[in-house]
Amino acid sequence: MDINNYKALFLEHLKSTIHIKEPKKLYEPITYILNLGGKRLRPILTLMSCDLFEGDSKNALDAALAIEMFHNFSLVHDDIMDNAPLRRGTKTVHEKWDINTGILSGDAMLVLTNQLFESYDSTLYKELMTLFNSTALKVCEGQQYDIDFETKKDVSISDYIMMISYKTAVLVAASLKMGAIIAGVSASEAQKIYNYGLNLGIAFQLQDDYLDVFGEENFGKQHAGDIIENKKTWLYLKALNLADANDKNRLIKLYSIETKSDNEVDEVVFLFKKYDIPKYIKTEISNYTKKSFESCDQLSIKDSKKKILVDFGDKLMDRKV
Amino acid sequence: MDINNYKALFLEHLKSTIHIKEPKKLYEPITYILNLGGKRLRPILTLMSCDLFEGDSKNALDAALAIEMFHNFSLVHDDIMDNAPLRRGTKTVHEKWDINTGILSGDAMLVLTNQLFESYDSTLYKELMTLFNSTALKVCEGQQYDIDFETKKDVSISDYIMMISYKTAVLVAASLKMGAIIAGVSASEAQKIYNYGLNLGIAFQLQDDYLDVFGEENFGKQHAGDIIENKKTWLYLKALNLADANDKNRLIKLYSIETKSDNEVDEVVFLFKKYDIPKYIKTEISNYTKKSFESCDQLSIKDSKKKILVDFGDKLMDRKV
Repeated sequence: MDINNYKALFLEHLKSTIHIKEPKKLYEPITYILNLGGKRLRPILTLMSCDLFEGDSKNALDAALAIEMFHNFSLVHDDIMDNAPLRRGTKTVHEKWDINTGILSGDAMLVLTNQLFESYDSTLYKELMTLFNSTALKVCEGQQYDIDFETKKDVSISDYIMMISYKTAVLVAASLKMGAIIAGVSASEAQKIYNYGLNLGIAFQLQDDYLDVFGEENFGKQHAGDIIENKKTWLYLKALNLADANDKNRLIKLYSIETKSDNEVDEVVFLFKKYDIPKYIKTEISNYTKKSFESCDQLSIKDSKKKILVDFGDKLMDRKV
Repeated sequence: MDINNYKALFLEHLKSTIHIKEPKKLYEPITYILNLGGKRLRPILTLMSCDLFEGDSKNALDAALAIEMFHNFSLVHDDIMDNAPLRRGTKTVHEKWDINTGILSGDAMLVLTNQLFESYDSTLYKELMTLFNSTALKVCEGQQYDIDFETKKDVSISDYIMMISYKTAVLVAASLKMGAIIAGVSASEAQKIYNYGLNLGIAFQLQDDYLDVFGEENFGKQHAGDIIENKKTWLYLKALNLADANDKNRLIKLYSIETKSDNEVDEVVFLFKKYDIPKYIKTEISNYTKKSFESCDQLSIKDSKKKILVDFGDKLMDRKV
């Protein structure tokens, strides 16, 4: 099956499963955020993984929806914490309604995630929930590290990789592993597809960091938003490592300014380019993508199926926005 | 076993299970709120119920802790929504840290709740989780109804009973049912102890409403806080039903004042007394307590054990704060 087929299958399941119930103010924000669109990367991976391991991807639909529900829960709560007005070019839940609505609807989404797994028999339910729980806890921990790093002075690149692994990559990895579990693969095979997803997820987030500054203009996303918000991304941390004392101090100074002028943003971009950071991050992205493909290569599936995973990774890393 | 024994057993389990991990800013608020004290009503009920149904209450410790974790999660998030500075006379989590910490630590607590159930085998895990999920969703819905009622003009007494059932009573009921499930009782027996808890939980919340205005001064709780905050409790709704047109309008007027003077609070209390509301609510509490005891009486356990549940209910309803 093709990516678009998985997406269509998923969207149909979303539409037929999620309805507005009473009390409306609790459930309206849930359908609102779930219908904002997006790549649907995670649920597609769950369906694709189940399919590649010879399972029926229809059986993975509830897990795929659970994963998407959890991902959107984390967006709703993160947007409150980040004070973000827009999500995919549209108002965030707490902007459209209010912060309390965002908190409470998010909470309900976390419970609904648990409930979506209930369609699986008890053995599978516990296996999926155990994976989900450890993943969800890491996502919370990753978000906390992200917040901590805002004020932490000595964030290392490995701290940063750990943070994005927790905040982003583990959920991509778990999405794939769930599809594999539902297809009934061995634990070692499930671990390999997990590792494929983990490294691909890290590459994906680094690619996001790169595109934020060096990508094409993107509907609904502020250009160089990470620089404006003083986010200590891989680009910044690598630049600090490579810059001479003068430029390093200047970067630190620039990242202490709460509202940067366009000139100051340009100066950061200039310094990134001066130290070849775009080249270095591309190498780093490529390294994680390769690691991901190595895990893929170890899978006991046909080469034609491995190629689907590799093509998917290549396509993901080739995006411009 | 005596109530104090259950409490001691629970506190020992809490102490040995919940530790501060990295990232500290995520886990410190969790241990903080869990160690603020309180009656520990819900976990005690889980242990007691398991014991009464001839189960080993030690097997119910993780479920009891999960229930207490969830209850405290709801306190952390509700305190943010209610903008409450104090909880049990001490700073609330969002006051001691900040709102984002409250949101994120609360989220982690909801995931930790799921994880605590993982010590049960898959059949029991799914049974407990299914009960937990439907209960937790009702708690979210109850909180939303509570918020909706703040601005809703025509809240009926049955609306209010539904709201407190969802927000408070279902968790008390589920605490008891979980103990029964762990002890391995039949579905119909589990339903009876659930009904005992549900009605006792409603009586408990109505008693809270009564004590807020007519109870003794209580450490860490503002006297008549519900009146000051214009909460449409049973007392207010009943008074609206019984008051003549003049007094009804006056009550509505008084409940539209954002910062009431002491005299205005006293006037509300005067109107409650004028229409015998304390007497009516005592009758209502007594009716729900009786309903609760009727469910208890239908249980297939020895009379001496039924007496323990009845004594527990009597003691709970006899409290002065």
